[in-house]
Amino acid sequence: MVKRTQTMDGNEACAYASYAFTEVAAIYPITPSSPMAENTDKWSVQGKKNIFGHPVKLVEMQSEAGAVSVMHGALDSGALATSYTSSQGLMLMIPTMFRIAGQLKPGVLHVASRNVATNNISIFAEHSDVMACRQTGFAMLCSSDVQQAMDLAAVAHLSAIKGHVPFLHFFDGFRTSHEIQKVELLDYDELRKAVDYEELAKFRREAQNPEHPRIRTSGLNDDTYFQAREAMNPYYDNLAEVVKDSMAKINAITGRDYALFNYHGAPDAEYVVIGLGSIMGTATETVRYLNSNTGSKYGYLEVHLYRPFSVEDFIGALPETVKAVTVLDRDKEPGAVGEPLYEEVASVLKERRTSIKTYACRFGLACKDTTPNQVKAIFENMQADEPRNHFTIGINDDVTFRSLPYGPELDIIPRDIVNCKFWGLGGDGTVGANKNSIKIIGDHTDMNAQAYFEYDGKKSGGVTRSHLRFGSSPIKAPYLVHNADFVACHNKSYIYRYDIVRDLKDGGSLLLATDWGVESAEKEIPDSMKRQLARKHIKLYIIDSVKIAAELGLGSRTNTILQAAFFKIANIIPADKAVEYMKAAALKSYGKKGEKVVNMNYQAIERGTNDVVEVPVPESWADAGVVKVKTDDGLKPHFIDKILDPVNNMDGNDIPVSSFMPYVDGSFPVETARWEKRGIAVKVPRWDASKCIECNQCSYVCPHACIRPYLITEAEEKASPSPLTTIEVKGLRNNPEGYRFTMGVSVLDCQGCGSCVNVCPRKALSMEPLREEGDKAIAYDYLDSLPVRNPFGTANVKASQFNQPLLAFSGACAGCGETPYAKLVTQLYGERLYIA
Amino acid sequence: MVKRTQTMDGNEACAYASYAFTEVAAIYPITPSSPMAENTDKWSVQGKKNIFGHPVKLVEMQSEAGAVSVMHGALDSGALATSYTSSQGLMLMIPTMFRIAGQLKPGVLHVASRNVATNNISIFAEHSDVMACRQTGFAMLCSSDVQQAMDLAAVAHLSAIKGHVPFLHFFDGFRTSHEIQKVELLDYDELRKAVDYEELAKFRREAQNPEHPRIRTSGLNDDTYFQAREAMNPYYDNLAEVVKDSMAKINAITGRDYALFNYHGAPDAEYVVIGLGSIMGTATETVRYLNSNTGSKYGYLEVHLYRPFSVEDFIGALPETVKAVTVLDRDKEPGAVGEPLYEEVASVLKERRTSIKTYACRFGLACKDTTPNQVKAIFENMQADEPRNHFTIGINDDVTFRSLPYGPELDIIPRDIVNCKFWGLGGDGTVGANKNSIKIIGDHTDMNAQAYFEYDGKKSGGVTRSHLRFGSSPIKAPYLVHNADFVACHNKSYIYRYDIVRDLKDGGSLLLATDWGVESAEKEIPDSMKRQLARKHIKLYIIDSVKIAAELGLGSRTNTILQAAFFKIANIIPADKAVEYMKAAALKSYGKKGEKVVNMNYQAIERGTNDVVEVPVPESWADAGVVKVKTDDGLKPHFIDKILDPVNNMDGNDIPVSSFMPYVDGSFPVETARWEKRGIAVKVPRWDASKCIECNQCSYVCPHACIRPYLITEAEEKASPSPLTTIEVKGLRNNPEGYRFTMGVSVLDCQGCGSCVNVCPRKALSMEPLREEGDKAIAYDYLDSLPVRNPFGTANVKASQFNQPLLAFSGACAGCGETPYAKLVTQLYGERLYIA
Repeated sequence: MVKRTQTMDGNEACAYASYAFTEVAAIYPITPSSPMAENTDKWSVQGKKNIFGHPVKLVEMQSEAGAVSVMHGALDSGALATSYTSSQGLMLMIPTMFRIAGQLKPGVLHVASRNVATNNISIFAEHSDVMACRQTGFAMLCSSDVQQAMDLAAVAHLSAIKGHVPFLHFFDGFRTSHEIQKVELLDYDELRKAVDYEELAKFRREAQNPEHPRIRTSGLNDDTYFQAREAMNPYYDNLAEVVKDSMAKINAITGRDYALFNYHGAPDAEYVVIGLGSIMGTATETVRYLNSNTGSKYGYLEVHLYRPFSVEDFIGALPETVKAVTVLDRDKEPGAVGEPLYEEVASVLKERRTSIKTYACRFGLACKDTTPNQVKAIFENMQADEPRNHFTIGINDDVTFRSLPYGPELDIIPRDIVNCKFWGLGGDGTVGANKNSIKIIGDHTDMNAQAYFEYDGKKSGGVTRSHLRFGSSPIKAPYLVHNADFVACHNKSYIYRYDIVRDLKDGGSLLLATDWGVESAEKEIPDSMKRQLARKHIKLYIIDSVKIAAELGLGSRTNTILQAAFFKIANIIPADKAVEYMKAAALKSYGKKGEKVVNMNYQAIERGTNDVVEVPVPESWADAGVVKVKTDDGLKPHFIDKILDPVNNMDGNDIPVSSFMPYVDGSFPVETARWEKRGIAVKVPRWDASKCIECNQCSYVCPHACIRPYLITEAEEKASPSPLTTIEVKGLRNNPEGYRFTMGVSVLDCQGCGSCVNVCPRKALSMEPLREEGDKAIAYDYLDSLPVRNPFGTANVKASQFNQPLLAFSGACAGCGETPYAKLVTQLYGERLYIA
Repeated sequence: MVKRTQTMDGNEACAYASYAFTEVAAIYPITPSSPMAENTDKWSVQGKKNIFGHPVKLVEMQSEAGAVSVMHGALDSGALATSYTSSQGLMLMIPTMFRIAGQLKPGVLHVASRNVATNNISIFAEHSDVMACRQTGFAMLCSSDVQQAMDLAAVAHLSAIKGHVPFLHFFDGFRTSHEIQKVELLDYDELRKAVDYEELAKFRREAQNPEHPRIRTSGLNDDTYFQAREAMNPYYDNLAEVVKDSMAKINAITGRDYALFNYHGAPDAEYVVIGLGSIMGTATETVRYLNSNTGSKYGYLEVHLYRPFSVEDFIGALPETVKAVTVLDRDKEPGAVGEPLYEEVASVLKERRTSIKTYACRFGLACKDTTPNQVKAIFENMQADEPRNHFTIGINDDVTFRSLPYGPELDIIPRDIVNCKFWGLGGDGTVGANKNSIKIIGDHTDMNAQAYFEYDGKKSGGVTRSHLRFGSSPIKAPYLVHNADFVACHNKSYIYRYDIVRDLKDGGSLLLATDWGVESAEKEIPDSMKRQLARKHIKLYIIDSVKIAAELGLGSRTNTILQAAFFKIANIIPADKAVEYMKAAALKSYGKKGEKVVNMNYQAIERGTNDVVEVPVPESWADAGVVKVKTDDGLKPHFIDKILDPVNNMDGNDIPVSSFMPYVDGSFPVETARWEKRGIAVKVPRWDASKCIECNQCSYVCPHACIRPYLITEAEEKASPSPLTTIEVKGLRNNPEGYRFTMGVSVLDCQGCGSCVNVCPRKALSMEPLREEGDKAIAYDYLDSLPVRNPFGTANVKASQFNQPLLAFSGACAGCGETPYAKLVTQLYGERLYIA
């Protein structure tokens, strides 16, 4: 049978298999599991049929507590029910999970695992959510990569039906749920044959039915509850065999070799790491590399069925030669002797193989990147004279000194694989274009492909980093790209803020979107970057994508142009083929919008391919003067200096634990945005004082409080370090202080949305390139340092304490109190104000 | 300082200490924790002051999810906040518990631990609820008895304040929460001195405050979350010392010796049992008994601080001589290698004392009684040639054979302790009178006192069993009374159903409330009971408490009379003193109701003391004929035969696991009440056909569907095994079948509430003693076996499918459709019906 492949992320892979076995899907989408629910919703609406020949009946509820209750009810009435969730959502399901398991219903929960919020909240992978469910009676099956998310989703459903125990199938949020890989599709016809119809019929028979009613979940007392509870032992005792049977069926279909515990490495390994989830890729590849390059006898034991934990299968999978194991937990249980998987393994080894040393390692909380050099350190620790135990990896714990040190990066990626990294601005289309690129390569070539997208907390307007890999070898690298063959920087301001070149290999290529030409490179590129470019022998390319987009009528949509430039430079597939596939994709995306739009995109592809220019990197740059990119006054608060700045500079991984001690309870200072000055807007508002009527609507609508009216004295105006334009105050009947009016624009905080320009009734504002507005930054800082003026005599408050800036005054309409400012003050203070 | 003692249950003891440290109590009461919230509510309303000089501010929410959120909010604003919960309620708190712990807030949750519902639901003690919170970051402190519930509640609050980590303080629901003991009260002045005011001030400073706002629980990404999370290690590393410090303060106040792990037993013990909660009493007393009587070297390690689990303190508490430990878990986690405490201990021993054998025992689910002989079996298992592991105790698991067999009962109660057991009917005042008695003894003498109350699921109308112990020795017996010095049976019908004498010691006393006199004993007492009375040399007393109560004008309130009889017979305190104290209690209880009521109760006390009569037990009874008390037809369904009957006969503990296999998913058959025929009503309705207008309101109001109208044919009337009274059918215009009307009364199902008599508009019903209504039981069974008649032509449905019986018809009003029956049918079928 021909295997069909498709490039998709873990959520889609899981939802694809899950849909086959689902009759009722009860959803309340939550990041990062949402696309599972959304795909199911979409397919249901499209009428896609499950293996029983019906579309899924989908119900969206008011919360996850409702979703799991619908699931419970559907199961109780004999329908195969499924839900998808993560994190806090899963927490709301716990009470009902006990019931579904207690009633032996074959429901399946697919979980893109995610941190449960503690002192801080994070949307990234951690097993704290699923481990908080280990007492519910749900079986727990873990997938380690995108292909597994599909295959083991099917195993979960098949096993639930055959074994009458509900399953929680989980994989790492974002790291697997949002990683795009080329996977082999399971065939629904094959899945249909794999179902145990006898047990399915038994489930249907036991459903609630008014024709033969039964009472559910009676109250039992101390005399009988214990016996009734133990009655379900056979179902759990039997479940390991059930799962093995389901895996055998999927193995027969796919040719893969799933087991409850998959061992990878030397058959006579002495040191073995044991773990759950996406760390498998890094761990197995590191083991392979070290075993073949250094003659080590290492192994990795990949846990699939965590609950029920089959002691016999575990002991059987562990080589007899093992001297020590380290158990990895992507989880933290404060106060426990060890994290959940460790305690499980330690308990088994205590009973069965006492001589094996056991070590515990906490790793990857909130998706902290875990790399081959870290895995190597874990193996080396087991062989140390005095091995550490209960340690962490991947961070610098300089407070309780639990972190294990590790060596420099270890590049174990097979040579045929091309590693690419793209820096973009949230909402600029970079991520979308990259998803497009990987599907082009994945679905049109025999190559394997992987994509992973890193977002910061600012979402739209934040920094995005796309990590793409392509190649003939299987790509088992569930960690970020650190040794890139190609890096693209889609926002020219980043070269002044971030170390873009750091992740490039020697001899790699850098594509920079910029409006300056080859001749300006010497002037524009910071020295620190020059040094790296030269020392690492980087090939530098530039393209003025903003200008091209404007010329083509694409507005600010530069993504297609930059995608074409990437295909040209990276040369992963022949240039003509790349253009052909990109055009086909553009036709698919924009065909409905008419020929004109399609043609614009065709042109963008051609311009992107043709207009990219190489910038010579002279050897002399290797010694370019050492100048600090950003100079600060050293008077910054601890939070800004130790946390905000490093995070904004993409150096957050290097922050040690001690820096967080003042914020250990999750309390952070306010008013910190003023220190960021990100300068990411391509264009910012310019104020034309001659047209301004001082209505201040611009300030009222600005979502980032970057444009604010000020009243200043003449003395203040004169003292300004940068020239100010001021005008007469229109709205004040009395002006004994002789205030002048000016509009301050914080160009470095501005996001360039243009709302102020749109709202201005007199066209007194226009958008101009940021670089030409440099003086405004200085002027704004000065204005912001002046005392707040309030001509109405109300309390003097700080604007930053409110979502909207408290405007100094509004001059548009004297006396009526109906100006936007007066309205705002009325909202804030509950009283109407009249201008003096 | 003089120690004040008071007799109270675990809930009150805990609430007493908790109140001292609480500023805001957020509640949503749930069994068995409710009295903690209710006491706090009451004291708050009364204006009782906490140690800070203010009454507690109490907030009742819409659910436990709301209660914990209020707690979170109050803590965030700097108020010391507390809640009280159990079971499913606690499950709803889990998401927010992560946050409270993550934010290092000193909140305290007091939990009366209770089973979380699975295939069945139970209100009794189990650690499945608290163990489901072990990943939240809350510290977990466990109390083993009523005194500890007070002392360690204080430790929890003191430690939370000093250590900045929230505490979950728990004790066994019902077994400790509702066990009444004489305890020493902590003095609020002493508690006030024990607070660490420096750390308290720090907590107040860190509260949310608009004057110095801080952001809470920011979103962190993969770069920083891990480090920020590890920043709280010092708080957890430090917590064992903090708790030891708090315990030292409480030890100084009380003279007790609390430690994180309290070891009891031989200093050179070879076999040690480790456990949490109320099993401590049974375990330590069994260890003491076996060590001193059989020369064993046994020990029990009582775990107080479960989280953080202090490895050093644990290792330090365990004797160096230990060869094997058995860890007890009152919990079941299907699919885990072992239950939570076991995995914790096994992990520690794997690292630190590998040579110690570890065994796991699951016990006491839903408060299954765990007795000294069971503890003995656990110790013996460790010394067996082939010890069992991962076993259960206290049940007969004949399906997966995990249960450990155990020997006959072991009476280890000190000889000076008097053990008493009282059988009552829910709502008859027995439990209230016993609570009264134990407070009289506890608070007026130097004796120790214990009371525990066993209820069945029927609440009012069910069987209650009160287990009381009194004596000079400390009473550490957290299990039911099985070797009673005194048994009282407050409902004469029980002697035909239950084995009342079984739990009596040789030479014990039995008090029976009955309306027959000494001369009728030979006739009335069943032979099986006679044999036991004679062979065990029981002293039998009777009193006609119903008659006395009626004579005194007390109606059906016999409890005071029976209490007086108990004091007379049991002779725990001198008779005159007992009368004095009982009268004082009656004055306190009824003083507000006037002299008349008080005097009635005084008379009841005197009559109870004087009117009790001893019945001679002739030796010849030892050989009274063997007659089965209850004969059944052998045709009963499995559920009735194997579960319902044994449970109703108070033999539920003996039901093996296999009997539950058909109901393993928590599905039980319906229509089972018809097999119960409890016959508990003292009086039942008698129907006067001559007055009946066939309105059927009696049937409509009966909450147990015990009185139902029937239409029968003449042939059916003639075929009745017991004579029927029938009358003309009043409501039918056409009656082609010639139906006759009769009213059937199921006297054995009737609860004797009298609602039917009260509603009857023509006084056609009156209440008569049950025993004179024997024929009705036969007649009713016959009527119930006849086909359902429906003269309206609607679907033929079975009455038992509805909450209210579907009446055969209503004859009161022809044609209007407004009879109660027609209304009912309208409700059920959504249409109005008119009589033919």
